[in-house]
Amino acid sequence: LTVGALRRAEIIAVGSELLGADRTDTNSLVITQGLNDLGIDVVAKAIVGDRFDDLAGVFRDALGRADLVILTGGLGPTDDDVTRDAVARVVGRTLHEDAATVDGLRQRFANRGLAMPESNRRQALVIDGAALVSNGQGTAPGQWFEWDGRVVVLLPGPPREMRPMFEYIAREVVAPRTAGEQVIRRSLRLVGKSESLFDEMLQPLYRKWAAGRPVIEPTILAASGMIELQLHASTRELREAEDALAAAAEDVAAILELDVISQSGRPLESVLGDLLRSRRLRLGVAESCTGGLVTSRLTDVPGSSDYVERGVVAYSNRAKTELLGVPEELIAAHGAVSEAVAVAMAEGIRRMSGLDVGLAVTGIAGPGGGTEAKPVGTVAIAVEGPDRARFARLFRFTGSRDMIKIFASTTALDCLRRTILRA
Amino acid sequence: LTVGALRRAEIIAVGSELLGADRTDTNSLVITQGLNDLGIDVVAKAIVGDRFDDLAGVFRDALGRADLVILTGGLGPTDDDVTRDAVARVVGRTLHEDAATVDGLRQRFANRGLAMPESNRRQALVIDGAALVSNGQGTAPGQWFEWDGRVVVLLPGPPREMRPMFEYIAREVVAPRTAGEQVIRRSLRLVGKSESLFDEMLQPLYRKWAAGRPVIEPTILAASGMIELQLHASTRELREAEDALAAAAEDVAAILELDVISQSGRPLESVLGDLLRSRRLRLGVAESCTGGLVTSRLTDVPGSSDYVERGVVAYSNRAKTELLGVPEELIAAHGAVSEAVAVAMAEGIRRMSGLDVGLAVTGIAGPGGGTEAKPVGTVAIAVEGPDRARFARLFRFTGSRDMIKIFASTTALDCLRRTILRA
Repeated sequence: LTVGALRRAEIIAVGSELLGADRTDTNSLVITQGLNDLGIDVVAKAIVGDRFDDLAGVFRDALGRADLVILTGGLGPTDDDVTRDAVARVVGRTLHEDAATVDGLRQRFANRGLAMPESNRRQALVIDGAALVSNGQGTAPGQWFEWDGRVVVLLPGPPREMRPMFEYIAREVVAPRTAGEQVIRRSLRLVGKSESLFDEMLQPLYRKWAAGRPVIEPTILAASGMIELQLHASTRELREAEDALAAAAEDVAAILELDVISQSGRPLESVLGDLLRSRRLRLGVAESCTGGLVTSRLTDVPGSSDYVERGVVAYSNRAKTELLGVPEELIAAHGAVSEAVAVAMAEGIRRMSGLDVGLAVTGIAGPGGGTEAKPVGTVAIAVEGPDRARFARLFRFTGSRDMIKIFASTTALDCLRRTILRA
Repeated sequence: LTVGALRRAEIIAVGSELLGADRTDTNSLVITQGLNDLGIDVVAKAIVGDRFDDLAGVFRDALGRADLVILTGGLGPTDDDVTRDAVARVVGRTLHEDAATVDGLRQRFANRGLAMPESNRRQALVIDGAALVSNGQGTAPGQWFEWDGRVVVLLPGPPREMRPMFEYIAREVVAPRTAGEQVIRRSLRLVGKSESLFDEMLQPLYRKWAAGRPVIEPTILAASGMIELQLHASTRELREAEDALAAAAEDVAAILELDVISQSGRPLESVLGDLLRSRRLRLGVAESCTGGLVTSRLTDVPGSSDYVERGVVAYSNRAKTELLGVPEELIAAHGAVSEAVAVAMAEGIRRMSGLDVGLAVTGIAGPGGGTEAKPVGTVAIAVEGPDRARFARLFRFTGSRDMIKIFASTTALDCLRRTILRA
């Protein structure tokens, strides 16, 4: 049997130590990147311990789903190292000892003035029909073979050994067996509506993309009040696909307008920073419930001192009055969490500092402090400037204290962005 | 069929985005820890995309190996979210809509002044015979059921939602179905020295614990400038083990003294908050390079308005002078990043606001702005008060911009804690 174009890969990391609570498998990330670059999808990944039956089961299942299976780990000299045996059993082949590999192992030990423990001969066992992959950094060679229209690859676990051997496999074994297609991706950041509402609004585009050429597939994800829309296309024509993705991003922007933060995956903080810098706007931030998080996020961006002039966390009413000039009577009349007070805070930071733009947030992060009229999660946001532009609105967020802080800060940054764009 | 003692678990993370080259699955680490604590081995983990057939296959295989299968992700409202359907198909059950969940979803949208998109009803689909697990942080409920001598659990993917729901499952569903020995843990938070130095100082205790009964095993971990020392003991005698861990924690405190933030795992922000509250101290924070992060971390703690009165992010020199009364000449003579300016900032926020304690941070977060004398990562921290207590020191941190912000904020909070404890 010969192997057709490889499309679907599965990666199996072998080793009980990888199943600990403080370990992550990084080999699979390197392999994923290399395979994606060749247009191959990784459809699943697994981590399995050193038990023969468990590994044999996971490998058998992977063969049922994928046409390329890459295993890392379990090629060492000890009884724990069962990858060779388990793979051989599942594909119904036997193992033989490779004489040249045994000689090489003996030589390695001799070079250090040692006799090779006989257990090391296990590392020279090769699955019948498999080709060896030499290991420049360690003792265990890798191996690969074709089986029933699929390709199976065994590599050692230590990343330093695995990496150059995978590069060899990608170049010499996988690349010649691909359909010649690559996967191109583009990431859009959205804000202002729920994941499901965006999804609904984009349905007509999804249908158009599915019928187009190249087909563009969307994935939509939500995290901390931000939505990410990933578009990807498999192609042989790199330039054509890039143009198609750019056009698709424009299609999204035409429907969602200002809800699109960026068509390039750049985060809100950076996009807003560029906007402030390019318009030469100097910003002051007045925060209450977010406690400094808005200013901290703005200053996560290198060079943000170009546009962030100051921030004030007016956590007490006294601080709102003293630092921002918010009249005590205004707080008494409307409450500290109100559009009126947010506007006064934004005006205060802008006027008292002689800045171009003032941004203010005041709210109830909870878990205490809520009332029937203003429950936990009630947040007022105001923007004053640039020039005569202004914005004020009362929002209602739900979740824990830290989620409300995150939602409120994201929304505040987004309100500022929209106000500047509309000015 | 009823379920016997659970011993072997498999964890499946669902979501095509988790198969990217730059994503790691952290949910499985939290789950592994929780299951190990209950004496359950994780025999394999898998990550699989949103394709129905792939997920159904991976889940079917897991049922063949494990008696507890926990799936995370794929419970959202979109067509991509196939976990409920795939699991139901494999176990041969149907789905029904849970009316109370639909009402809850509608209410959530109504609270934000929105109509619920109909697609959200998907999130209310429950596998026949499954019990729901409520989601305090998001919209998708979890569910679990017994099937053919096994337990199957479906949880949402976002870690913030997943974590408390898994804790519920561990306590209410898994723990009652285990064979008996439990792992008891106690977590100590340390700060002020390196992981390896703490490790060296604690060697005599490690030896004592290894020889004791129950044996206490330590694990030391570093994250973002904080060190966590985890102590654990396997036992059937819960009370005895808890007493032994409490005594071990006291042993650590006797050696490390003020470097122990808490013996109970409580974070620095909370411990410091209690200290400020119990001594009735009102705090003002003056930040530059940390950009509001110190104040934001302090206000992550519910009730922090009891002691955080205000914060000022004096990002520009003008703001340092105007808001904190730092003399221009002082900045010119010493530079904005200097002990002298940090002291003036701390004095300024304390005096101008009539507060008990002032905390100040000024530094160079990078990547630009460093000089030979003051490279990126140079940070001055000062504390003024309570009463005549004062502290000032220049630190040097290394890492990326956000790591320097985190190190500087952690160190600032810790300097404040020590200054108050010594006052």
